[in-house]
Amino acid sequence: MTDNPLLNLRERISALDKKILALLSDRHGLALEVARAKQATHRPIRDKEREKELLSTLVEEGRKLHLDGHYITRLFQLIIEDSVLTQQALLQQQHNQTTLRSARIAFLGPKGSYSHLAARQYAARHFEQLIECGCLRFQDIFSQVETGQADYAVVPIENTSSGSINDVYDLLQNTSLSIVGEMTIPIDHCVLVTTPTSLNEIRTVYSHPQPFQQCSQFLNGFPDWKIEYCESTAAAMEKVAAENSPHVAALGSEAGGALYGLQVLEHNLANQQQNITRFIILSRKAVDVVSQVPAKTTLLMATGQQSGALVDALMVFRNHGIVITKLESRPIYGNPWEEMFYLDVQANLNHSDMKNTLEDLKPITRSLKVLGCYPSENVVPVEPRRA
Amino acid sequence: MTDNPLLNLRERISALDKKILALLSDRHGLALEVARAKQATHRPIRDKEREKELLSTLVEEGRKLHLDGHYITRLFQLIIEDSVLTQQALLQQQHNQTTLRSARIAFLGPKGSYSHLAARQYAARHFEQLIECGCLRFQDIFSQVETGQADYAVVPIENTSSGSINDVYDLLQNTSLSIVGEMTIPIDHCVLVTTPTSLNEIRTVYSHPQPFQQCSQFLNGFPDWKIEYCESTAAAMEKVAAENSPHVAALGSEAGGALYGLQVLEHNLANQQQNITRFIILSRKAVDVVSQVPAKTTLLMATGQQSGALVDALMVFRNHGIVITKLESRPIYGNPWEEMFYLDVQANLNHSDMKNTLEDLKPITRSLKVLGCYPSENVVPVEPRRA
Repeated sequence: MTDNPLLNLRERISALDKKILALLSDRHGLALEVARAKQATHRPIRDKEREKELLSTLVEEGRKLHLDGHYITRLFQLIIEDSVLTQQALLQQQHNQTTLRSARIAFLGPKGSYSHLAARQYAARHFEQLIECGCLRFQDIFSQVETGQADYAVVPIENTSSGSINDVYDLLQNTSLSIVGEMTIPIDHCVLVTTPTSLNEIRTVYSHPQPFQQCSQFLNGFPDWKIEYCESTAAAMEKVAAENSPHVAALGSEAGGALYGLQVLEHNLANQQQNITRFIILSRKAVDVVSQVPAKTTLLMATGQQSGALVDALMVFRNHGIVITKLESRPIYGNPWEEMFYLDVQANLNHSDMKNTLEDLKPITRSLKVLGCYPSENVVPVEPRRA
Repeated sequence: MTDNPLLNLRERISALDKKILALLSDRHGLALEVARAKQATHRPIRDKEREKELLSTLVEEGRKLHLDGHYITRLFQLIIEDSVLTQQALLQQQHNQTTLRSARIAFLGPKGSYSHLAARQYAARHFEQLIECGCLRFQDIFSQVETGQADYAVVPIENTSSGSINDVYDLLQNTSLSIVGEMTIPIDHCVLVTTPTSLNEIRTVYSHPQPFQQCSQFLNGFPDWKIEYCESTAAAMEKVAAENSPHVAALGSEAGGALYGLQVLEHNLANQQQNITRFIILSRKAVDVVSQVPAKTTLLMATGQQSGALVDALMVFRNHGIVITKLESRPIYGNPWEEMFYLDVQANLNHSDMKNTLEDLKPITRSLKVLGCYPSENVVPVEPRRA
């Protein structure tokens, strides 16, 4: 107990947070036990009715304790998501017997890039140790894994505000690698500086062209800032750290900037409040998705050029009750007047519906390649029941 | 203890969740005590350095307990957000002496609309009881509050995928109401049905034009669904509930559908993964934002038509170090060749920088109206420090 009431309260909060942490750890342990029990009984990982029941009860009891229902819902949705992902990872590892303790992951950029953060986040959930292989070009990432110098590739595939990343789509056409996972990470562009300064002191801003484009509205407020393009946000951070002046800044992520000792002057600059990038994870060996885990399959398909060819192909999915979650078209490399189609579908490659779909597609497509079948890490939360 | 291992584990999880809830309630109580302590000392609500410290420690300790660092970060960011909003609400209420126990809130649509959910969510944090006043048109919402039939209006102002809501911007030009708050809610469009059915069984889908547009990619997979437009998602739900057939469905929110007894067949349909709508809250009486709470001010401004007039005005903000977070232009009602500018700025109307800005703007604008100064409920999370 100190005399300062605020310090005293803070100590009590810290002690309380530790207790919450200990309970979260216990709950994590129970989730693993649940996964083992489900492994024996072959029950699916998610039981949405049970989740709804649980949320409704918690919201109800929380209300008696003067806790906001939306707060409790969001918090326990997060706890349930961790539980689902933990169970999925355990079942997948045991099924595929891939318990690599350390993994070499190739990604774009020097330390601090968004791809670097994605690689770290993927590794944290799947491996005990990460060996980082930063690459300069997307092509180098693919060949590092193809030649066995790295175990996994983590590459961005689409962004909510700037759309699909065409270079990666094009590399997928000719790779022997398989997609073995996916993840999404929120992109929060910040103004990063070395020393305490103010926005009005800044003269020059460094970044990759994409953050400049995504933050155009914010930048309009500072018409006399000099814009300097760099090959990555990480390169911009490196430059700002080296110049060490109150007149220069980088646009990039807080976590990335921290690796260069940079501080955040302004947060959340993107025109779109929610700016999210989806990454895919590739490896030389395809994985099997255990039946209890929701699966996604990515296909690459060329239809003929006759009219209605694409619709005919899409009807095959529909007839087998397969939901298409993404459809993207790209010119065929070396043959720019013909298009390839990339499709993400909610289906397991081992399921008969999906096998029949591929069987039916063969005669009506010119080429058809399965890029991978992997656990869907998009855990859509349920809502509590309401009166 | 039962013989079923899964049931037994679930009971243990439920018991554990109750303990977490009790700790969250204690933490909520401590946050209120912190607010009272800060009221006495005039310290700001947020201390980002302290938050960072706290997060870093928790991530570190969580790692020892095999908890994923990103999971712990997101969870405690949410707990900190609740703490910040709780403190802001307490300081604001005491400062403005507005402790209405029950509030009449006007919003668009019958029960189950997104606006209805927003009104409920705002009320849950600010009042003990909500009296709901559903309206048919935006204009009715404004006049209900202007004439004293309701205390507050909750109206959408912009959506991440479909942009600004022009009708509301236009009503703001001529209203006597003040903006007293803001909030954002995630929009999750679902396929809602009355009885268990499958996507292939569905023949007709009802919804408002906007969800159809926002879910176009998903709908492309079902080319023979008949699309029927309704005046709101809630009206669509009502129709589906009344028809009660496995062949009809509505697009709308899960929570809204629950009010009509509808179930979710498919989640998260929007083309953009994160689809968020920002709402503003209006009332007859403007509020003061206490200095410890981050404030936003919304202005409506008409510059002359001489070249450079807008840039000159924007330079005034810059010279006083005021950050513009949104700039929107709309034709002046009845005078479509002249434009009005809506600006959101990060500033408190009582602060000298903002007073000086308004002073300097007066001689160079044709009209200038403060639409309101209100607490910013956009609690930008901090990241833990990293090695």
